Amino acid sequence: MRIHEIHVTPVAFKDPPLLNASGVHEPWALRTVVEVVTDEGVTGLGETYGDLSHLDRVRAAARALTGLPVHAHHALHARVAAAIGADVFTDQHGLTGAGSHQKTVDAVFSPFEVACLDIRGKAAGLRVADLLGGPVRDAVPYSAYLFYKWAGHPGADEDRFGAALDPEGIVAQARLLIEEYGFTSIKLKGGVFAPERETEAVRALHDAFPGLPLRIDPNAAWTPATSARVGASLDGVLEYLEDPAPGIDGMAEVAAQVPMKLATNMCVVTHDHLPPAIARGAIGVLLLDHHYWGGLLRSAQVAALCDTFGLELSMHSNSHLGISLAAMTHLAAATPNLTHACDTHTPWQDGQDVVAPGALRFTGGAVPLPDRPGLGIELDRDALAAMHEQYRRITVRRRDDTAYMRRFDPEFQPKRAHW
Amino acid sequence: MRIHEIHVTPVAFKDPPLLNASGVHEPWALRTVVEVVTDEGVTGLGETYGDLSHLDRVRAAARALTGLPVHAHHALHARVAAAIGADVFTDQHGLTGAGSHQKTVDAVFSPFEVACLDIRGKAAGLRVADLLGGPVRDAVPYSAYLFYKWAGHPGADEDRFGAALDPEGIVAQARLLIEEYGFTSIKLKGGVFAPERETEAVRALHDAFPGLPLRIDPNAAWTPATSARVGASLDGVLEYLEDPAPGIDGMAEVAAQVPMKLATNMCVVTHDHLPPAIARGAIGVLLLDHHYWGGLLRSAQVAALCDTFGLELSMHSNSHLGISLAAMTHLAAATPNLTHACDTHTPWQDGQDVVAPGALRFTGGAVPLPDRPGLGIELDRDALAAMHEQYRRITVRRRDDTAYMRRFDPEFQPKRAHW
Repeated sequence: MRIHEIHVTPVAFKDPPLLNASGVHEPWALRTVVEVVTDEGVTGLGETYGDLSHLDRVRAAARALTGLPVHAHHALHARVAAAIGADVFTDQHGLTGAGSHQKTVDAVFSPFEVACLDIRGKAAGLRVADLLGGPVRDAVPYSAYLFYKWAGHPGADEDRFGAALDPEGIVAQARLLIEEYGFTSIKLKGGVFAPERETEAVRALHDAFPGLPLRIDPNAAWTPATSARVGASLDGVLEYLEDPAPGIDGMAEVAAQVPMKLATNMCVVTHDHLPPAIARGAIGVLLLDHHYWGGLLRSAQVAALCDTFGLELSMHSNSHLGISLAAMTHLAAATPNLTHACDTHTPWQDGQDVVAPGALRFTGGAVPLPDRPGLGIELDRDALAAMHEQYRRITVRRRDDTAYMRRFDPEFQPKRAHW
Repeated sequence: MRIHEIHVTPVAFKDPPLLNASGVHEPWALRTVVEVVTDEGVTGLGETYGDLSHLDRVRAAARALTGLPVHAHHALHARVAAAIGADVFTDQHGLTGAGSHQKTVDAVFSPFEVACLDIRGKAAGLRVADLLGGPVRDAVPYSAYLFYKWAGHPGADEDRFGAALDPEGIVAQARLLIEEYGFTSIKLKGGVFAPERETEAVRALHDAFPGLPLRIDPNAAWTPATSARVGASLDGVLEYLEDPAPGIDGMAEVAAQVPMKLATNMCVVTHDHLPPAIARGAIGVLLLDHHYWGGLLRSAQVAALCDTFGLELSMHSNSHLGISLAAMTHLAAATPNLTHACDTHTPWQDGQDVVAPGALRFTGGAVPLPDRPGLGIELDRDALAAMHEQYRRITVRRRDDTAYMRRFDPEFQPKRAHW
């Protein structure tokens, strides 16, 4: 079964003003939807970033893949690498680590790989999780992903989540997400305020939700010394500490001094980072993300590597739609050593989706593995058309949390090892 | 598609008196043939060791797997692990490293995994290589695997390969194998005579076959000091030096002193060995072997790990039949970073096989990837029955090269760090 044609569709959906170390989310989040259609008329779905330069690369790769068999994993990857050449993508927000050629190729390859697995599953009557070794859990737990946020975008109405700028606001946000989704673990995006202020929020969460695993991710906004101090002060409170300080060296320095494991989706984001991070003991938990680790099969291989080296696994998330949620759920369901709840931005997408309702739902904070073949989802073509129309109407063409923040705070600087 | 029944058949085939550091091959080699049959009547083939204690474990695992889906990789592995309990298999010849629980489970799992992939390929109309990411080469190069050997088993007729006990005999053996199979690289099994005598043979091969990659494997018969001296003396002659000295520490000591990469199928034979071997720089080439690395998918994951850590790949072989040759060929064809010619004992099996003729052949020293679905091979049921009858007739129930050697040399001791 060979690739006959590929449709690449950029979409935009509304995003609340979520704060992070790089600035604040813009009113529109961008994604790219990939539809691979075979010579037998079977369609597979993939989803990836929406930044224009990435979109251009995805389109170039799509042109290069026609005619290849959907199961030719290595050949598809090689074709993508050739289509991209020496190009390197560096995202503007800097929240998923440094760009590299390897990461660029893997990120462009990812949506095609997911779509091909969707097709292979449909053709064989198997779920994508079955193609990844079979599910070891029926439902995948996700965490309540909390953000400091403004009540609404400046000049717009307040959104239904309201403001969260202090411990009370964060606890209230957690209550809302837990009530609506049933989450049984919590992640707080930090790096927005001074660490003391953010640890107050962590302690408030710990008091309000005793027993719930809890983590904070300041996106490398702290120095190693601050990280070590804050980490020590949160002994017994945190499940793990995510990316407190920048770089493998910085993380290794912190890891040697704090009682909990360090997690990352910033200092280890491609294969080249694994050997030095492992050699220096920089991390204890890797946040997998199939969007930049080259799809689901390559992520499963990274998971096996982590198992060999005693690294635990969690899962990273950027703003995404249901195709990605389905892919993340299949991967996590079929990864035995992924024992921490995964991150997802799904609550912030607040019902907007290109996936037809019914296949994906949260129960007890977990997404049950869709039980139909492939990813087990279908496109809502009207929703896709509407989101693509939104994309055409707006001028945002890449995510730039810092530039958007500077509209309101011209002196704003991204917080890298700031405190 | 679920496992309906499994047939486990021990077989014996004639083996020449090949010499190694542990002694000499007995007149009969043992293997176990595994046939997995699904509820839809599709049959898949696997092949593994024939030692009785291993056979017993394979039979116990077979009873535990009935009813599971053939694609439930993780669940099948867990079921095998549960069936085996805390049992540890240690082979008597000691040529593939120490036994461990992990390695025992992976070795028992392997033939079932291969058989399930054979079935999955047949069901989907895909080759096993397609299920492993697709072939990156159409044919898999193997090496001419040379052995010091007697002219025939004591008390029996001389075999057609004749004696090889000096450089001239080894070069003549290489000529024969290269003439018959077209091999374009050479491996000499050493550890039989003093290193000086064996390096003479290496130099004779280097002179007789200029430009052909050349390696020697003394099965850890040398001390680190000897290994360093011999390694230095063979600079520019060897492609790699395989298992000169015992253990990760010993190999690391050698690796720091010799100009060529060290390869192993002895000091790194299960996942627990990878982190220390990598940390100490003990090896540069891993000899994959799906028979003890837990089948083809897990071997592919180890290959990905090796790629991440800059380890090169070759492939190990014990005496085997065509089912294993087919599985090795599919794995090697779909492993991009397996760039060294694989080892195989096929020439020494000299036409004996349980696989029906036609699917597997050597051309230019390489085995073209079978092009039918699954492994692309079929059982020759008459040959299987005859080899099983041979097994029933003989008393050999485990490979013990040392005990057999001691029948002729009662004082013989296995050569471990001997010279």
